[in-house]
Amino acid sequence: MQDLDASKLSVTITMSPGKVPEPDSEEVHNMKTCSDHMVKVTWTDDIGWHAPTIEPYGQLTMSPIASCLHYATQCFEGMKVYRGFDGKLRLFRPDKNCKRLVMSSARVALPTFDPKELEKLLKAFMKADGPKWLPKSRPGTFLYLRPAIIGNGEQIGVTAPSEVLLFIVAVCWPDLSSGTRPGTAPQPPGLKLLASKSDVRAWPGGFGYAKVGANYGPSFVSHMEGRKMGYDQILWLLGSDYQVTEAGASNFFIVWETKERKRELVTAPLGAKVILEGVTRGSVLELARERLATGSTYLTSDIQKLEVIERDFTMLEIEQAWKEGRIVEAFLSGTAYFITPVSAINFRDQEIDIPMGDGASGYYAALLKKWLRDIMYGNVQHEWGVVVEEE
Amino acid sequence: MQDLDASKLSVTITMSPGKVPEPDSEEVHNMKTCSDHMVKVTWTDDIGWHAPTIEPYGQLTMSPIASCLHYATQCFEGMKVYRGFDGKLRLFRPDKNCKRLVMSSARVALPTFDPKELEKLLKAFMKADGPKWLPKSRPGTFLYLRPAIIGNGEQIGVTAPSEVLLFIVAVCWPDLSSGTRPGTAPQPPGLKLLASKSDVRAWPGGFGYAKVGANYGPSFVSHMEGRKMGYDQILWLLGSDYQVTEAGASNFFIVWETKERKRELVTAPLGAKVILEGVTRGSVLELARERLATGSTYLTSDIQKLEVIERDFTMLEIEQAWKEGRIVEAFLSGTAYFITPVSAINFRDQEIDIPMGDGASGYYAALLKKWLRDIMYGNVQHEWGVVVEEE
Repeated sequence: MQDLDASKLSVTITMSPGKVPEPDSEEVHNMKTCSDHMVKVTWTDDIGWHAPTIEPYGQLTMSPIASCLHYATQCFEGMKVYRGFDGKLRLFRPDKNCKRLVMSSARVALPTFDPKELEKLLKAFMKADGPKWLPKSRPGTFLYLRPAIIGNGEQIGVTAPSEVLLFIVAVCWPDLSSGTRPGTAPQPPGLKLLASKSDVRAWPGGFGYAKVGANYGPSFVSHMEGRKMGYDQILWLLGSDYQVTEAGASNFFIVWETKERKRELVTAPLGAKVILEGVTRGSVLELARERLATGSTYLTSDIQKLEVIERDFTMLEIEQAWKEGRIVEAFLSGTAYFITPVSAINFRDQEIDIPMGDGASGYYAALLKKWLRDIMYGNVQHEWGVVVEEE
Repeated sequence: MQDLDASKLSVTITMSPGKVPEPDSEEVHNMKTCSDHMVKVTWTDDIGWHAPTIEPYGQLTMSPIASCLHYATQCFEGMKVYRGFDGKLRLFRPDKNCKRLVMSSARVALPTFDPKELEKLLKAFMKADGPKWLPKSRPGTFLYLRPAIIGNGEQIGVTAPSEVLLFIVAVCWPDLSSGTRPGTAPQPPGLKLLASKSDVRAWPGGFGYAKVGANYGPSFVSHMEGRKMGYDQILWLLGSDYQVTEAGASNFFIVWETKERKRELVTAPLGAKVILEGVTRGSVLELARERLATGSTYLTSDIQKLEVIERDFTMLEIEQAWKEGRIVEAFLSGTAYFITPVSAINFRDQEIDIPMGDGASGYYAALLKKWLRDIMYGNVQHEWGVVVEEE
């Protein structure tokens, strides 16, 4: 069986190139404009991975009995490509996304591959579309990259697909971590979360840790109900003790002080395989462990040293800390929302307000966001910022 | 917003009709041959349901960022159309499937509709394709009907799709409840089940009760592992007490005697919304309650009266009953596998053998199967067998 092999890539250039929308335009906020090309790789159960292609972006055709339309044999990644302030094009820790896609693929009976080959395809794709769609004249902008794997074989029996398509598209995407949508009233900073009541996103023994479609569609009803009630995201709880897992499609962090006035950055652990192992989550943890310990030069009166803790924690603990004035701040991390401060959590019909530092963001969230932005946009040279060669 | 309206149906007849495969042929076992036409109905968030069409069966085209390919915004139904021994074409309780599809659709943020209109579309579809694909010369045969709803709008943001496609196809399908695949060695009767170990299919607060794609793809890995070990289906357990939920994509029934030697037919309840409310499951329960009570003319030395019980029960209870020789039989019910006897359950690496009545099937399973077949194929006239008018 053939493994995925980026060296077999062939490229067909589009004859009808699209127009790059203005940054922060309505078109960008619609999140439907893709770049000129897409990567496609077919897998079949007889020979494995076929030769990859970069070809003009366009519609997919598939059988009405394609597995992915009935049985959610599908997984994806969300990542971004950044146009740096130094003029360079960068991916952020693409090795993490590529490895996670392999894991997600296996979880829904789709084929695996060498993640390094996928990273090569991402770079080749951005070498083709990056210069036009992220022009050097627009430093500090990004495109959203969506690698996906779908079982497109005709397979109405409940079994693994015999044919699969891996594809990658690049989507013009707004900065959801700041800015307000053009033409709408400015929103107060900070996201308001609604703690889930009856609906449960994921469960031990399930697939909450994998980036598979099956984690998303079933969550939309709760999200829509939350939005109707004036909340931005659902904070997903688990179990009779209201364990905090993740929020919307992001990881959740809280900074609080213990009763002994020790400051902690707390997030849910990966062990039970209930939450997604976010690339931004991991990066926040690594940076915080490295730069927010005793003796760090980043410490100030607002940014005091803290201990980084991955453990199960509950809404009851958050509620208690809130009553005792021990909450420092909270934020979400993820590719889509990046680092976004949380201003309130509704838990059992009670509104828990979360401090917001200087009013626009908690201090830690702002600092972590700056650190990550500096890496993504080349203000500092860091191994996490992987440069894409351009011609 | 327009509701689904079958009276707006338009029909376009295919110019390239297909060939109907021989019953039980290799082609039928491949489950890829569909009839000449398909039903399609578009829904958009501006006007609701558009006019339905019956058109030539063919490929679907959709955007690479269609919601259903990434976020499992998809649900479906499984049902059959039967060519009766009286020459008539019948659906089996189609109102149940149509209502369940409405429920499933809402669970993944897809639009709802009047289920009666869907039933009319199913009948119109089979009026068109039934006479050719289920010829009167082949009484006792069936086609598998697959209504499905997919979010095919371009929607890479995590929100409800703005455009949706409802479609129905008819697939040539083998009789999985009996017969062996042509060209392969005959299988001993009865399915062997492997009780799930770490993987959990569904949980309270999740979506196990809805027929959504998200319940299927993530279960395939367990199924494939089970098959490698020589088992036909996974018996899905839940919780630290090993509650029995459902098996494969079927409901699970056990007949046992209590310690007081009372005979019971037991299956998991619907209350926790963890298992699918199978149409066959409900029909088995209704028939058993009606025909297997004291005084029934169906009772014999093998078919003794029993009490029908929907309650949580565990593998530990099954294990105990097995050790004490109290298990009478077990079977699965569902559209795909119909009524299929179970011959063994592997639980914690111990093989629990289940009695098989006359060797080919438990007595109750055989009787319930006969009763249902008689209704489906018109050997008896019953309100559950809904005749499709043909020209």
